[in-house]
Amino acid sequence: MSSRKTLFASDGADLAGLKTNMNVDYVIHYSIPSDKAKAEAEAGFAQLIEVLTKVGLASEVRHGDESSLLVFVKVASNEYLASQIYRERVQDWLFSVRASAPEKDIVKAFENEPVTEAERLRLVYLLITKPKNEGGAGITPKKGLWKYVISIFPLHDNSFNSSWIKAWSTKYFLDEEDLDRIRDKFGESVAFYFAFMQSYFAFQLFPAAFGFAAWLILGRYSYLYSIVTSLWSVVFFEWWKKKEIDLAVQWGVRNVSRIEHPRTQFQWEYEAPDPVTGEPVKHYPPTKRLWTQLLQVPFALSCVLVLGALYIFCFGIEIFLTQVYDGPFKSYLTFTPTIILSGTLPILSTILTKFAENLTERENYQTNDAHRAALITKIFIINFITSYTPLFLSAFVYMPFGNLMLPHLQIFATAARKLSSEKTITTLDFRINPDRLKSQMIYFAVTAQLVNVALEFVVPYAKRVVVDKFQEKRASLGGKSIQDTPDEHEFLQRVREEARLEVYDVAVDYREMVVQFGYLSLFSSIWPLTPLAFLINNWVELRSDAMKIAMSSQRPIPWRSDSIGPWLNALGFLSWAGTLVSSALVFLFSGESEGPGGDPSNVNVVGLLLTLLFAEYLYLGTQFIVRYALGQIDSPGIQKERATRYRIRKRLLEETLGPNAMKETVPPTPQTGEKITLVALNKEARNMSTGVSGTPEQM
Amino acid sequence: MSSRKTLFASDGADLAGLKTNMNVDYVIHYSIPSDKAKAEAEAGFAQLIEVLTKVGLASEVRHGDESSLLVFVKVASNEYLASQIYRERVQDWLFSVRASAPEKDIVKAFENEPVTEAERLRLVYLLITKPKNEGGAGITPKKGLWKYVISIFPLHDNSFNSSWIKAWSTKYFLDEEDLDRIRDKFGESVAFYFAFMQSYFAFQLFPAAFGFAAWLILGRYSYLYSIVTSLWSVVFFEWWKKKEIDLAVQWGVRNVSRIEHPRTQFQWEYEAPDPVTGEPVKHYPPTKRLWTQLLQVPFALSCVLVLGALYIFCFGIEIFLTQVYDGPFKSYLTFTPTIILSGTLPILSTILTKFAENLTERENYQTNDAHRAALITKIFIINFITSYTPLFLSAFVYMPFGNLMLPHLQIFATAARKLSSEKTITTLDFRINPDRLKSQMIYFAVTAQLVNVALEFVVPYAKRVVVDKFQEKRASLGGKSIQDTPDEHEFLQRVREEARLEVYDVAVDYREMVVQFGYLSLFSSIWPLTPLAFLINNWVELRSDAMKIAMSSQRPIPWRSDSIGPWLNALGFLSWAGTLVSSALVFLFSGESEGPGGDPSNVNVVGLLLTLLFAEYLYLGTQFIVRYALGQIDSPGIQKERATRYRIRKRLLEETLGPNAMKETVPPTPQTGEKITLVALNKEARNMSTGVSGTPEQM
Repeated sequence: MSSRKTLFASDGADLAGLKTNMNVDYVIHYSIPSDKAKAEAEAGFAQLIEVLTKVGLASEVRHGDESSLLVFVKVASNEYLASQIYRERVQDWLFSVRASAPEKDIVKAFENEPVTEAERLRLVYLLITKPKNEGGAGITPKKGLWKYVISIFPLHDNSFNSSWIKAWSTKYFLDEEDLDRIRDKFGESVAFYFAFMQSYFAFQLFPAAFGFAAWLILGRYSYLYSIVTSLWSVVFFEWWKKKEIDLAVQWGVRNVSRIEHPRTQFQWEYEAPDPVTGEPVKHYPPTKRLWTQLLQVPFALSCVLVLGALYIFCFGIEIFLTQVYDGPFKSYLTFTPTIILSGTLPILSTILTKFAENLTERENYQTNDAHRAALITKIFIINFITSYTPLFLSAFVYMPFGNLMLPHLQIFATAARKLSSEKTITTLDFRINPDRLKSQMIYFAVTAQLVNVALEFVVPYAKRVVVDKFQEKRASLGGKSIQDTPDEHEFLQRVREEARLEVYDVAVDYREMVVQFGYLSLFSSIWPLTPLAFLINNWVELRSDAMKIAMSSQRPIPWRSDSIGPWLNALGFLSWAGTLVSSALVFLFSGESEGPGGDPSNVNVVGLLLTLLFAEYLYLGTQFIVRYALGQIDSPGIQKERATRYRIRKRLLEETLGPNAMKETVPPTPQTGEKITLVALNKEARNMSTGVSGTPEQM
Repeated sequence: MSSRKTLFASDGADLAGLKTNMNVDYVIHYSIPSDKAKAEAEAGFAQLIEVLTKVGLASEVRHGDESSLLVFVKVASNEYLASQIYRERVQDWLFSVRASAPEKDIVKAFENEPVTEAERLRLVYLLITKPKNEGGAGITPKKGLWKYVISIFPLHDNSFNSSWIKAWSTKYFLDEEDLDRIRDKFGESVAFYFAFMQSYFAFQLFPAAFGFAAWLILGRYSYLYSIVTSLWSVVFFEWWKKKEIDLAVQWGVRNVSRIEHPRTQFQWEYEAPDPVTGEPVKHYPPTKRLWTQLLQVPFALSCVLVLGALYIFCFGIEIFLTQVYDGPFKSYLTFTPTIILSGTLPILSTILTKFAENLTERENYQTNDAHRAALITKIFIINFITSYTPLFLSAFVYMPFGNLMLPHLQIFATAARKLSSEKTITTLDFRINPDRLKSQMIYFAVTAQLVNVALEFVVPYAKRVVVDKFQEKRASLGGKSIQDTPDEHEFLQRVREEARLEVYDVAVDYREMVVQFGYLSLFSSIWPLTPLAFLINNWVELRSDAMKIAMSSQRPIPWRSDSIGPWLNALGFLSWAGTLVSSALVFLFSGESEGPGGDPSNVNVVGLLLTLLFAEYLYLGTQFIVRYALGQIDSPGIQKERATRYRIRKRLLEETLGPNAMKETVPPTPQTGEKITLVALNKEARNMSTGVSGTPEQM
């Protein structure tokens, strides 16, 4: 009974239970294990209902599956919520997030600026999760006292979702209204992702067209293509930085990153008054944190070592098996490196990510935002290495040093001999495969992207089908089945399904795009059709991400944000690295021979270094010019912000000083009265001896 | 009768005429030529007095020298000036220069924030020079209708000046109070220069000490010294950027560059409403300006060509005469290049500067600030080339390619033969002089700086003495002498002297320091004592600049400013260029042989390029880290600004919403009344069939 599937498949009118949310704000999924922990969980549950009630939330309980409960939470009084929202708006104004204070009259304030769904849901979530001393219920899912709280999620607005998906799948470009709707439903954090995707997609039209032309006319490893792409990436990056600010102003969230919600796990050492608000704030010595942060250097090095070693090992086996080995089972054996990689890479990645998490935990950040940013930086390092090492190895190890590697590959031959009990291993003459880079690039630009989209769809779908089937079967087998009242049944079934969905994490989607941007900026000169492939992929990606949110994830908590955050640094780094890597690639591989052919003596080192230096200066120069040029254009967002502030101040001024406060006043005539002209002076000079004129002191 | 000299020489008590300013705000020096233009000048003068009176300024006229008049200008009513100052403070608040609006009650406002001398003088100056439609008298010295206005200047506060000079010459470091006093007297623009000088001086202590140690232990061309200096320059630059903002906040001038006074010469093409204030503003298409700005590229190239050619020519002659030629008059002839350079360089510089001025004029900027910034950038280019070319040529042409140059130097031999009618020219064996670079560097670090300080003192002093003597002689010869009333005589003589003084231009002093920073950052590895020499020089320089303002310049108009402006970019550029140039120097010249000895085949090109790349990455990396680290430290200025804004808003909030507006309110108990606990749920489940429980819809 996959009711979600039904919903999107038909426009059925009698699916009321799927379309209404029965005014529920949040659902808390609470686990009641059947073992000895049951008593503890039940006590916790009673407490849950109690703390919810204390902060003014009404709750209603239904059965989840046989070992969990669903708590439906709703704000008891809308007046109370309104006062909470009003307080938050006032706080926004105190922290310069808003340029204007909300209306003094609460009713009028909500008339002027109606509450969006995202705003309401965010505040209810904060009410549930904020610490008790800040007026919340202090519920922290899966942690401490609340370890039986599996998740807290709002219910999907299914009628919105289906119209959303339908609308987006029939249009090429998203407009501002589309983004505004996302923002109203899922918050600025998700809206920023789609805004970024949309801008990135629109910007990609240029390299896609240019790359196609380059592919037709210039061929691969073209200097012109590489330079144009680098310039493009600089322009895109600088442009987005401005756009981001504009969007933040437009959505009224600029500077919102300044008021961040404190991290519960933060351990403080001393208290000091906040320099802005004057209230006592818990502190951790920043120098202490800096020392912990320095651990990132050995961390990055060990990532390079561990992952690099794995890649080099597999790379060696692969070269050996495909280009040297010619013995039995060759066609099967060539899969060995792929099997090793796909077996060990996820494990290593997980271990390193755990390490990164621990490290970030030890850095002991004060706010959730700072913690998340630090974690993302580390995850970016891991991703950078796992994504680009294969191409790096091919381009800068295999192609120039291939022939020098050959003797070392004999280890594998020896190993193979020992394993196979044969005396000799048939080998081929080793020759550098000049198409290796290109085929790798095509794999990353096309195959991997397709696989990825497929995985994003198929895996959650398959998972759901299996789980649904399992539940159905159990129900039909008449196990300890759950009896709902008939009018609630359909609704509850839907909520149970949503409870089983994954939590949407926007960072995963950002990561994918940033890694893609890296391929484009670092390696696309290998195959100039890369941007076109990415463009097509991104059209699909944008929609599939929307579907992921609508269909296979719990509805996200509508967080605010004023930027794409730490990913911005990652983009900047990739744009810079891209200039160097792509110029080196073009220098090494352009021309007839397409690369040094495995012999490092074919590489003109002076030329390579000059190219790198030139690329570096070109990058810095372009960046300087683009920043200057974009700086000349006043950003509409910041302008609007300034204009609002000016208007408000002017109004305030007129209220206090009268409407003519800034008008010119007429100067009084000088009190000295007589005008002193040249004629008078001459007269005065003549009278000088008689002492008629006054001294300057008398002025 | 050099009364200024007397003033600083003695503490004479009867020098009332030198110490009082007779409440004069400004002196307008007006020229009345004795030729046929006299009638026009006199008509203009009558108009001058009229427009001054119209804007509420009283004036009194005395004779200047025999062909000029002195108009003493004073605000007629202090109430009117107060209203002008108040209006400006309100405008500052409207443009976010101030965080808080001035008190509503004018009297109280001036009690809380008394008017400084700089504020008063600035507003009076604006009253005299602002266009008529903005409420000023519209007097533009030396231009258009007012071409006979020679200068408009405030009178020096001599008692302040003498105590200032005395105080500074007896202390090592300036403190905040010293800077505040400068700010109150001469405005933020001059105060920023001294603040910069002071910071630069304090920061130089480190490289001076390190350089001294390096000179003792490491010798010249030390890698360590070069790296440390580069890191130091990055730290200094990034630190100053923060310090600048702090100072601007502390002095209440942050964002003051946003409200700039329109340039009278600006030619507009269309009008459009200002996005912030909504008032119509004159515009010039920015793309059109951008095209004109592109002319800077050929401008910079022609500077390089013209000045480069001159330097190369003189360089060639010099090498030839000192190291090849051994004929007659050698000792005299060696001065030829110096004579050529000192004869032509000032002329070429003047021509190029004129070019730069014309180009900037054509770029047609809207505000004086933008115009000045554009001009300064161009002047920096000229200065960069004139200052560093000699060292560049020695380091990167003479030292590596000296032997290849030799055949070309034969031109001079041929020329000399032709001129001297001798058949042969005695020549020496040409050998690269390895100490050439060092002796050049010592010249720039010591000799040139000493000459410069001397020139700054001696030339104006000598000029004054000559002029004074000339005036005295004329007076004693009983020419058309000026008869003052005896009680005014001393005062008027002093004003006449001040009228003859030069106008102080802070840009000249900045330029000197920026060029010095360049020597330090680019070339100091040649002679590690350079920073020590600069440190000593700067101690003197700071005081001599103060004396220049106090004694040999007209009192500057106290302009506001929120930064050292375009010089910041120049510093950044030099700090970047320094990393590259000094790493190249160290690579080429470190080691036993100290340089390639005139033979380019001695240069390891791969090593050089690698060094450059490494230096570049080290620079970028350091910059990133320093920015991050400094970004972690909340700038006290910005923090103060945010805190003020927060406090004001909070007060406003309490005024309108009552004192408890931000306190927690107690949530109401949920209206559903009954608490739904687990027990209740189990009961409910048992009652399910009886339909007792409500549906969630009833919630």
